[in-house]
Amino acid sequence: MPEQLTLYGHRHSSTSMIVAIALSEAKAEHTFYEVDLRNKPAWFAENINPAGKVPAITYGGPTVPPDQPSPQSTKLAESLVLVELVADLHPAAGLLPSDPLKRAKVRFFVTTVQTRYLEPYFHWFAFGRPGAWREIYEGARAIQALLPESGEGYAVGEEFTTADCVFAPAAGRTKIAYERGIGRFPPEEAVQLRELMDAPEMARFRAYVGRVLERPSVKANFGEDWVAEGTKVVVELFNQRDAASAST
Amino acid sequence: MPEQLTLYGHRHSSTSMIVAIALSEAKAEHTFYEVDLRNKPAWFAENINPAGKVPAITYGGPTVPPDQPSPQSTKLAESLVLVELVADLHPAAGLLPSDPLKRAKVRFFVTTVQTRYLEPYFHWFAFGRPGAWREIYEGARAIQALLPESGEGYAVGEEFTTADCVFAPAAGRTKIAYERGIGRFPPEEAVQLRELMDAPEMARFRAYVGRVLERPSVKANFGEDWVAEGTKVVVELFNQRDAASAST
Ligand SMILES: N[C@@H](CCC(=O)N[C@@H](CS)C(=O)NCC(=O)O)C(=O)O
Ligand SMILES: N[C@@H](CCC(=O)N[C@@H](CS)C(=O)NCC(=O)O)C(=O)O
Repeated sequence: MPEQLTLYGHRHSSTSMIVAIALSEAKAEHTFYEVDLRNKPAWFAENINPAGKVPAITYGGPTVPPDQPSPQSTKLAESLVLVELVADLHPAAGLLPSDPLKRAKVRFFVTTVQTRYLEPYFHWFAFGRPGAWREIYEGARAIQALLPESGEGYAVGEEFTTADCVFAPAAGRTKIAYERGIGRFPPEEAVQLRELMDAPEMARFRAYVGRVLERPSVKANFGEDWVAEGTKVVVELFNQRDAASAST
Repeated sequence: MPEQLTLYGHRHSSTSMIVAIALSEAKAEHTFYEVDLRNKPAWFAENINPAGKVPAITYGGPTVPPDQPSPQSTKLAESLVLVELVADLHPAAGLLPSDPLKRAKVRFFVTTVQTRYLEPYFHWFAFGRPGAWREIYEGARAIQALLPESGEGYAVGEEFTTADCVFAPAAGRTKIAYERGIGRFPPEEAVQLRELMDAPEMARFRAYVGRVLERPSVKANFGEDWVAEGTKVVVELFNQRDAASAST
């Protein structure tokens, strides 16, 4: 019998989705526990992740209710660490290629997504940082340049890997922002970004995004409509917080 | 015969050192090419790393002079990607444990070093950001908490792993800053940080730093004295740049 694995996450958290997608791909038996991020239970930081963030997991030890974690399980956090752990625990799922060079390409793809796509997206979405929408486009071009020559498959080839698990929420969220204009940026920037992203020279990138978002493991954890609704709520919370701090 | 591997780096670059240490550990045959970072040759960004940064490698393809890279070799960059590549290419060196959980611990250690030790160090060293010296201390405590119970060995146990390769330059540089007062911070902050770091409750951390800096692969790539001299030059360059921008 495999060791118990409990994922502490939140269905609207991109970092949690990365791990949830990997677990779906690996068809790994596990328990999901949704942490209330607006009212975090004390035991979470005390006994699971001192940083108080999701995703985190417990692995091994006895089977216990998730809100009464056992001291005997291993506790681990950080989405990029956990996605590789899932890959290592389930080699048959092919989430990490066995060829060292291909593994390096997977990891380089992840770094590119994080620093050139996700970071500018976040700055654009949350703060409307000027110029960020252009960086998102440059990031998409950098990602497109890494895709297989074939114009098919996923980040580094035929197999769906950890690189695609990491890319999926970033791809979906960015699309929601520029297609639906959800985020704290000037609306015309979404129109400009959409024009660039919909242009013929981005066809290979768009086709890849489409394949990723259609992947069953991704669909099970990322739905454009419900994520969009949750994102509107986040925008509202940001706005309220700013209004509150402006009036004090 | 193993494939050719050329490391493009700089002997004063911490990110290059990480990869150089891993290659030394693995006793991997390779060519080192020092890139002149103040006067970067055009072929480097054109043919090796579009980001223009070190470390980068070429792997495979024919043996060629490093400044005439072959189109047939694979080009890769990013220190954390490359250190895992070296581990994967040389499994016998034990740079990554084979147990999935231990591998995850190695990667979590790397994340902790990067975000809680190296980042505040850099902000303290380069900009004297207020409070950064305290974060360095908190980071050291977080790292100490991850070390094996035994009080011996390295980041995650007996074996010297990629976690130690990443930690080595961070450990050495921070020590140079607070022991020798080299950096763009108020000198009294170095005295305060040194007091905290030299206190009895940091004994386990200090012993670990000592073992890492004494490791032959580290000594071959990081010498406190010559790194300190290079660091003074960097401080001087930062100061000149600031003076120049203040006078325009
Ligand atoms: N570097 C972490 C980031 C995790 C993170 O920021 N999680 C967010 C949700 S996406 C969180 O838990 N926020 C709640 C909080 O910080 O209180 C990872 O990649 O796992
Ligand atoms: N994220 C990269 C950072 C590499 C980096 O910043 N390299 C510096 C030297 S430590 C560099 O090449 N700077 C020269 C430049 O940017 O022109 C890595 O980890 O490899």
